[in-house]
Amino acid sequence: MNIADLLPENIKRLKPYVAGKTIAEVKKEYGLERISKLASNENRLGCSSKVKDAVLTSLKEIQDYPDPVSGKLRAAIADRNAVKESEVILAAGSESIISILCRTFFKHDENAVTANATFVGFFVQAGVRGVELKKVPVTESYRFHVDGILDAIDDKTKMVYLANPNNPTGTYLKADEYRKLVDGIPENVLLIADEAYFEYANEVDDYLSAMDYRKPNVIILRTFSKAFGLAGFRIGYGIADETLITEMLKTKLTFEPTAPAQAAALVAYDDLEFLKKSTEVVKKGRDRLYSFFDDHNVQYEKSISNSVMMILDSESEAVDFTQKMLEQGVILRRINAFGLPNCVRITIGTPSEMDHFEESFKQIFKQ
Amino acid sequence: MNIADLLPENIKRLKPYVAGKTIAEVKKEYGLERISKLASNENRLGCSSKVKDAVLTSLKEIQDYPDPVSGKLRAAIADRNAVKESEVILAAGSESIISILCRTFFKHDENAVTANATFVGFFVQAGVRGVELKKVPVTESYRFHVDGILDAIDDKTKMVYLANPNNPTGTYLKADEYRKLVDGIPENVLLIADEAYFEYANEVDDYLSAMDYRKPNVIILRTFSKAFGLAGFRIGYGIADETLITEMLKTKLTFEPTAPAQAAALVAYDDLEFLKKSTEVVKKGRDRLYSFFDDHNVQYEKSISNSVMMILDSESEAVDFTQKMLEQGVILRRINAFGLPNCVRITIGTPSEMDHFEESFKQIFKQ
Repeated sequence: MNIADLLPENIKRLKPYVAGKTIAEVKKEYGLERISKLASNENRLGCSSKVKDAVLTSLKEIQDYPDPVSGKLRAAIADRNAVKESEVILAAGSESIISILCRTFFKHDENAVTANATFVGFFVQAGVRGVELKKVPVTESYRFHVDGILDAIDDKTKMVYLANPNNPTGTYLKADEYRKLVDGIPENVLLIADEAYFEYANEVDDYLSAMDYRKPNVIILRTFSKAFGLAGFRIGYGIADETLITEMLKTKLTFEPTAPAQAAALVAYDDLEFLKKSTEVVKKGRDRLYSFFDDHNVQYEKSISNSVMMILDSESEAVDFTQKMLEQGVILRRINAFGLPNCVRITIGTPSEMDHFEESFKQIFKQ
Repeated sequence: MNIADLLPENIKRLKPYVAGKTIAEVKKEYGLERISKLASNENRLGCSSKVKDAVLTSLKEIQDYPDPVSGKLRAAIADRNAVKESEVILAAGSESIISILCRTFFKHDENAVTANATFVGFFVQAGVRGVELKKVPVTESYRFHVDGILDAIDDKTKMVYLANPNNPTGTYLKADEYRKLVDGIPENVLLIADEAYFEYANEVDDYLSAMDYRKPNVIILRTFSKAFGLAGFRIGYGIADETLITEMLKTKLTFEPTAPAQAAALVAYDDLEFLKKSTEVVKKGRDRLYSFFDDHNVQYEKSISNSVMMILDSESEAVDFTQKMLEQGVILRRINAFGLPNCVRITIGTPSEMDHFEESFKQIFKQ
């Protein structure tokens, strides 16, 4: 017997995840001491100082299963967003909610519409579910093509997925574009508005969160992995009409997210001071990087998230640049898996990490 | 538009999870101080004292995504079980691995064979995937019906699922029964041997772990939620042929389990002293409960796990007994969802918790 005979075609087609290098691995492999990990859009400031005590308290009952609905956190999120608790679902990160969406709503002959250059997590989970994925190319300026997306919807479309702000481009749908999109989507098609980078975009004038223009067929995703600095804990939430949330609660894993993650997120959600500091560091770091790129004739897109996308002339240049930066201790992320093989995504780090980026860049290009 | 029109039939049929009462809720609702939670087969001794420091260390990098393959823990598990690392998968508890199995291997027209009285988690996840589930009734003594299970396998069967030791019955397949079962299953059908309670069964003479009679089509599940006392952290593992593990790694969530869970499990896995203490307390507690039940003419099944199943005459008696014990502060679990409506599952607790059980039982039955 060949194992391949056991497998559905859609699973055979999936590619295994290739992990980026860790700080420890890069230190060892290249004999380096100074490492700047600007690869995964994590919060380089860490997380709220209140997390430690909350986690320690949660450990006292670590032998017990977690609260299956994350009751306290759910109430806090409902309160801040002025929705009912029954409109909120907590799960093990946005990736888990995307998986829940794919498990809950797709029939096997349906399709999803998305862009060619957006969060790879949706591509993977739709692939796991085995549905057709229609990827509408972004415009020349790396923006979502609203008319193209609306045109791609057909009788078999169950879901439209977009990250807004978008990952990996850092671009976004302007308020009028978002309204046109959501108004144009049939009411029996779900729109997944992934707002993982919402906290960075909050003060952008013409950015419109799906929360501020709600529709019953729209599911909003938010996460504690970015501005809140809790990526290691895997916790995120969805907000939607309670009829949709009720169905999603039936397919989520009973006890996700973990008990310490619930405890950590609850205090992190309340620490608005840390949140403000985090978004301000990113804002300053972005402006500094734009100036640096302008001075060095580097093509990039302006971003409202915590990363900036650098545009190179070819895939081989992107491979080469990423490798040379790695050898200097600066870990960056190629975004070929996100549909942009000639681009490199740079997470905005601390001032010291951005120094490291600039110094390494100059080192490479003077040679 | 009606939301129900959006949903696949298998999702509509799923019932929402109904959470048991927490210690805090029972205290408040019944005005009680003394609560014994003997409902969820958790480790009433807590967890290894080494967990706290390991978690604190992991918090220093909590802003970063976890190691996607849980490398250190995977190596430790491979080493202790004398398998290759590529034969091990870590995920967010056995429930997550069951979900991964359902996502990875089923085609939509296939079926699974299991028993009517085994872990409800498999019933749920197979339901989420929408495959037919053939539940073979257990024998009159609550044991798996090996011939019945083998007979139920047909051309469309992809998977057989059994928990061994079984949950909720505490019974098990004797070594010769297990060999007969696994030898009788076609090589193109996967056997999921869920050994969540393995650590309690390890010294039972005629219990045979699937690890000690390995076949390429068998996937063994183990967990840190029971004897290791880390249910709140959601972490478990699977061991199988590397070709199967490779496919499962493609569909697992990229970053499960969480970073602190990996750190906690690594030190807990090494604390064999705590493990020994945990299993000894359970063994003594079981014997004590058997004597108590014999003295009070209560029907039960002997168990090799950390719970004992009490058999009542009817569902209404089971409902009534569970409620009266709750009013005394003893939280028990009815196992109607596991297919046994007239039974109640009692987790073996500390000596003091078992005192509480006995005192409450006597209080109820003297009235």
